[in-house]
Amino acid sequence: MNLLVFQSDFGLADGAVSAMHGVSYMVNPNLKIEDLTHEIKPYNIFEASYRLLQTVKYWPENTVFVSVVDPGVGSDRKSIIVKTKSNHYLVTPDNGSISHIAKFIGIESAKSIDEVNNRLPFSENSHTFHGRDIYAYNGAKLANDISYYDKLKDIDVNELVKYQIKDPKIENGQIEGSIDILDIRFGSLWTNIPLKMLEEMNIKQGDKLKVTIYNEKIKKYENEMIFGHSFADVGLGETVAYINSLINLGIAINQANFSETYQIGTGLGWKIFIRKVDL
Amino acid sequence: MNLLVFQSDFGLADGAVSAMHGVSYMVNPNLKIEDLTHEIKPYNIFEASYRLLQTVKYWPENTVFVSVVDPGVGSDRKSIIVKTKSNHYLVTPDNGSISHIAKFIGIESAKSIDEVNNRLPFSENSHTFHGRDIYAYNGAKLANDISYYDKLKDIDVNELVKYQIKDPKIENGQIEGSIDILDIRFGSLWTNIPLKMLEEMNIKQGDKLKVTIYNEKIKKYENEMIFGHSFADVGLGETVAYINSLINLGIAINQANFSETYQIGTGLGWKIFIRKVDL
Amino acid sequence: MNLLVFQSDFGLADGAVSAMHGVSYMVNPNLKIEDLTHEIKPYNIFEASYRLLQTVKYWPENTVFVSVVDPGVGSDRKSIIVKTKSNHYLVTPDNGSISHIAKFIGIESAKSIDEVNNRLPFSENSHTFHGRDIYAYNGAKLANDISYYDKLKDIDVNELVKYQIKDPKIENGQIEGSIDILDIRFGSLWTNIPLKMLEEMNIKQGDKLKVTIYNEKIKKYENEMIFGHSFADVGLGETVAYINSLINLGIAINQANFSETYQIGTGLGWKIFIRKVDL
Repeated sequence: MNLLVFQSDFGLADGAVSAMHGVSYMVNPNLKIEDLTHEIKPYNIFEASYRLLQTVKYWPENTVFVSVVDPGVGSDRKSIIVKTKSNHYLVTPDNGSISHIAKFIGIESAKSIDEVNNRLPFSENSHTFHGRDIYAYNGAKLANDISYYDKLKDIDVNELVKYQIKDPKIENGQIEGSIDILDIRFGSLWTNIPLKMLEEMNIKQGDKLKVTIYNEKIKKYENEMIFGHSFADVGLGETVAYINSLINLGIAINQANFSETYQIGTGLGWKIFIRKVDL
Repeated sequence: MNLLVFQSDFGLADGAVSAMHGVSYMVNPNLKIEDLTHEIKPYNIFEASYRLLQTVKYWPENTVFVSVVDPGVGSDRKSIIVKTKSNHYLVTPDNGSISHIAKFIGIESAKSIDEVNNRLPFSENSHTFHGRDIYAYNGAKLANDISYYDKLKDIDVNELVKYQIKDPKIENGQIEGSIDILDIRFGSLWTNIPLKMLEEMNIKQGDKLKVTIYNEKIKKYENEMIFGHSFADVGLGETVAYINSLINLGIAINQANFSETYQIGTGLGWKIFIRKVDL
Repeated sequence: MNLLVFQSDFGLADGAVSAMHGVSYMVNPNLKIEDLTHEIKPYNIFEASYRLLQTVKYWPENTVFVSVVDPGVGSDRKSIIVKTKSNHYLVTPDNGSISHIAKFIGIESAKSIDEVNNRLPFSENSHTFHGRDIYAYNGAKLANDISYYDKLKDIDVNELVKYQIKDPKIENGQIEGSIDILDIRFGSLWTNIPLKMLEEMNIKQGDKLKVTIYNEKIKKYENEMIFGHSFADVGLGETVAYINSLINLGIAINQANFSETYQIGTGLGWKIFIRKVDL
């Protein structure tokens, strides 16, 4: 038996998440069930994809993740299970939720779920809660017995729906990256710039960096800050560049909220440039 | 041993829910403990009752639910355990929290809990947290050994406190129902009108419906919309009538929030009328 | 094997808490993992300390608590494990998070964690998420086998970082206390005045009390209210003094929010005075 972990945009304020857990226990009451988060912003597939990448590799092999951010429920989008190269399983609508995992961990194989036959018994009149009727049910069957995967129909990994994920680049002596997401509670910016790329530019902890942030073509922030090991390397209220828990560059204020203070957002329209300041 | 599931209006921001779990583990550290939701609006017994109906039947038989929305803690309201006709158990104050279950699933038998003798040892100076001292403790004893139920004092099912729950009706060629609750995260309206009543009126998926909503005597919304299988049957931002996961009529906007957009609320003052539009 | 309970200021909206759980399951997938709360206000060590006191004694002996409110992550603050006189274990940064437990329950012994050797393998480039890399990992090892504690390096209990916690006092015929924290969802005030001190002043349930609240030197509230057993002893919307679930004095409005209604806060600047009204 394997661990079963749920993620969704359902929130915890009603019975939806509990119904998914309950359906899983009906498959086997001895399952171990956990949650990643249920506070993905409604319909935000990019965030669902990112949170899976952030978390999956910190769980034992063969853990089954059920991720239900599903604006297309009831359309002809497929329901899939993928096996990652790290030996984790993801049960999810085929809508891009596996994009980050596909790019940064890799997908070994994929299956499709037959929504007519592989569903919670007596749920055929329900067309808007596949989280309970399809994904929890199939996730539980898989967590209960991993060989369930082999019985499903193969699909081509290359045909899975994937968002395009932009790579950071080095140009004119500076790094150009994107601001993928926030460390929500603390308001730090998490970029797509890996430690390795900083090393390539010969940037070391203790160096001073010039950080410039654009929203589309409008400059929103520009200032110098220390590249530290952590927030504690600067004074209270001071800005700092650091390596976050995914080993990418982050931008923070020690014990305050960078995103709120400087009104910086995330997503495709936001770019960040990093240059080492010569002393 | 049986599953133990908690619901309350305590929120998750302090130690209250954790104390209830902990007390349960002191009864037996091998119990399996889960949560329905702890974000019931403070003192809102109707919502507690509704969320139980929404969830209970998706859990294995003999699951024990502890529901603590208890504005009358410390008064002479009784503490009860009921056994449902679906073979689930509910441990709760006798304040109407079992109303929806009583009406739509049925109650087989009921017991009262002696608040003096059947309580957490050494908790007699505490008069305001029966969730921990009475309900968690008794819920855990019951989940641990279902025969605990038989040892408690019988009470008459007909004397349990129940809210009156309004039925929808057909009048003048249209259906009149109420808006019970929201699909909170997405702002869709959940009505008390079952699929069966739509079928009685010969309403089929694909038909156009006229939807009118009143708050008391003031018309708040009137428009036509498609009765679809799901949100994906209409364009982004368009309204749709659909069958929700409880097989009742719901009203939504595809990928937006109906309740916020049109300022529609829930509860006794709100009525909804449904009429098929002849083409 | 022992229960493992997490607390933090991370919130539940991203993957941080789930990563801590996952790392623990990598130590042993059979662990039983629970949460106290993850909604401690960011960086608020006092609240973390208080919530531990509120909760720990309602869990079985040998339960391991991991508490991560860690504004000094990456500084030279120590990482510690303490064993309480109630036979519970706390894994936490040495920043005052054990203050209330130390004062009201007592600490039997303490150990330090070597952050270089006792950490999640391959996490050495990560300097800002000790919750995952240090505390979850060591908490899981301890919950898995309590004798892990004995292998760690002793430190002096007297050298642990502790906040000074003010005692209530009796002066000029009245009690002077502080407002430690809110019963968050309901807005009741939780003071540091124990039932015992009310008894010393010969205050009994049913008595009328004069309650005066100051913020620094400015009077913010003064009125008389009944000292009741619970909220139900007064009418809807009326104020009441009562004994809360920690057996300290609380101040509430029956089915409304005292803190919001009268704009009363918590913490060092707030004082409350209690005097019995002679009739």
